[in-house]
Amino acid sequence: MAKNQPECAHVQEALIARPGEAFALQDRPTRDKDLFPDKDDAAASVAADAVKIDELQDRLYAEGSRALLLVLQGMDTAGKSGTIKSVFQATSPLGMTVKAFKKPSAEEMARDYLWRVHNAVPRKGFIGIFDRSQYEDVLVVKVRSLAPAEEIEKRYDQINAFEEHLTQNGVTIIKCMLYISREEQGERLRDRLEKPHKRWKFNPGDLDDRQNWDDFMAAYETMVQRCSTPHAPWYVVPSESKTRRNALVGRLVRGVLEDMNPQHPDPGHRLSEFVID
Amino acid sequence: MAKNQPECAHVQEALIARPGEAFALQDRPTRDKDLFPDKDDAAASVAADAVKIDELQDRLYAEGSRALLLVLQGMDTAGKSGTIKSVFQATSPLGMTVKAFKKPSAEEMARDYLWRVHNAVPRKGFIGIFDRSQYEDVLVVKVRSLAPAEEIEKRYDQINAFEEHLTQNGVTIIKCMLYISREEQGERLRDRLEKPHKRWKFNPGDLDDRQNWDDFMAAYETMVQRCSTPHAPWYVVPSESKTRRNALVGRLVRGVLEDMNPQHPDPGHRLSEFVID
Repeated sequence: MAKNQPECAHVQEALIARPGEAFALQDRPTRDKDLFPDKDDAAASVAADAVKIDELQDRLYAEGSRALLLVLQGMDTAGKSGTIKSVFQATSPLGMTVKAFKKPSAEEMARDYLWRVHNAVPRKGFIGIFDRSQYEDVLVVKVRSLAPAEEIEKRYDQINAFEEHLTQNGVTIIKCMLYISREEQGERLRDRLEKPHKRWKFNPGDLDDRQNWDDFMAAYETMVQRCSTPHAPWYVVPSESKTRRNALVGRLVRGVLEDMNPQHPDPGHRLSEFVID
Repeated sequence: MAKNQPECAHVQEALIARPGEAFALQDRPTRDKDLFPDKDDAAASVAADAVKIDELQDRLYAEGSRALLLVLQGMDTAGKSGTIKSVFQATSPLGMTVKAFKKPSAEEMARDYLWRVHNAVPRKGFIGIFDRSQYEDVLVVKVRSLAPAEEIEKRYDQINAFEEHLTQNGVTIIKCMLYISREEQGERLRDRLEKPHKRWKFNPGDLDDRQNWDDFMAAYETMVQRCSTPHAPWYVVPSESKTRRNALVGRLVRGVLEDMNPQHPDPGHRLSEFVID
């Protein structure tokens, strides 16, 4: 690995919210140059990791017995879409699913909030990405009081149990909070308003959430504190430098896939018996 | 309630496997006349309860905020289908779903075993019936070693957590084990072979399970012992008398629905403002 690129394990160490330990969002940076001092190194890292991730994903697909689930959460403009495009730039859509969780449909509202989430869990052999996730049910739902407070309170444990079930059944989970400041979001939103090719991304509703920034940050903090578990830890990714954000998530994903170490399955010992004329 | 028909609470008391207490299947009857000494009383009971269940289901549907899930498990010929037909003889299919869990499809096998189960949970306002269920994954899967033993061992806790999640999110669960003896099954299978209109129900594969009767009973015992919980208890229903079996399940379902006590929702206070000309 290039000398200005941190080891995957080092990135994990730096960004993880340690399960069971106190967590304060204010201790975390939204902008950080320690891990990738040089921006060009970061760009080279994410490109190299993307190739490696593609290779590992091919093996995961061939193996066909386990799945990887990447959960991305962040305020509007934090860069969920950009991260996906960059980190998986070399990965074939064959073997990948991306599920963007929007406002629940009537069908979805008629079930428990994990119903649509469970349904979208990647199949064995796949990498699945959640662009937003079950955590919306303790974030926007909490801030806007869309469910009774005592129900929301129970969801942290319910989500932990659900994720533990998944990990015990062959789904490895990485959860990344893409962390930016309110000021940075302001700049990015203004950019969306001003640049014609970005206008389609502007949603007036985002401004409502922006008005409740502090409430959202409090909800994020509680989410990380209560749902960073040994089986599915949260990583808080400083996301104001897009290149470094991509490099950090790329390194996390690569590291987890390398630890999973998927193998081409044994084709059996009878291949020599086949004759292809 | 007629004097020869036991109260719902009394039937619950008699049939429940008390959470946290030791459970032995051999202590339970497959045939029992204590609760309904007279067969005609049992037949009258299930007919009356069916009407009451229909009425309660209408209210559950109108209320639209909670669901009832009835889980039926039992060896082949124990009477899952017959119970459904009888207990819900007066209930409209509108507002009901019955999911029969068969051998998992390739799509289902590619996910965790609860994936298809969660997907089939009844929507709010509905009564859902599982004809077989998540428990197949600790019954036939265990007896036939279709999954590694250490994975199956984890499933009891996983199922308990899953059911707790459902009950915390508005789904009331009743679980009935329809209990018959191996001798009774023998008679019923011979009946299926002999009577032309019953032959379609005969499946040679059932005989394999019959050969493993003791292993199945051990698996059922462990299932009840470990998964009868305060939020989702197991009831062991003596099922050799079909009429009494139906009456007992009808009484359990009626009792739970009465406890749920669903209400027509408040239409709001502005109805008087509408003018229909």
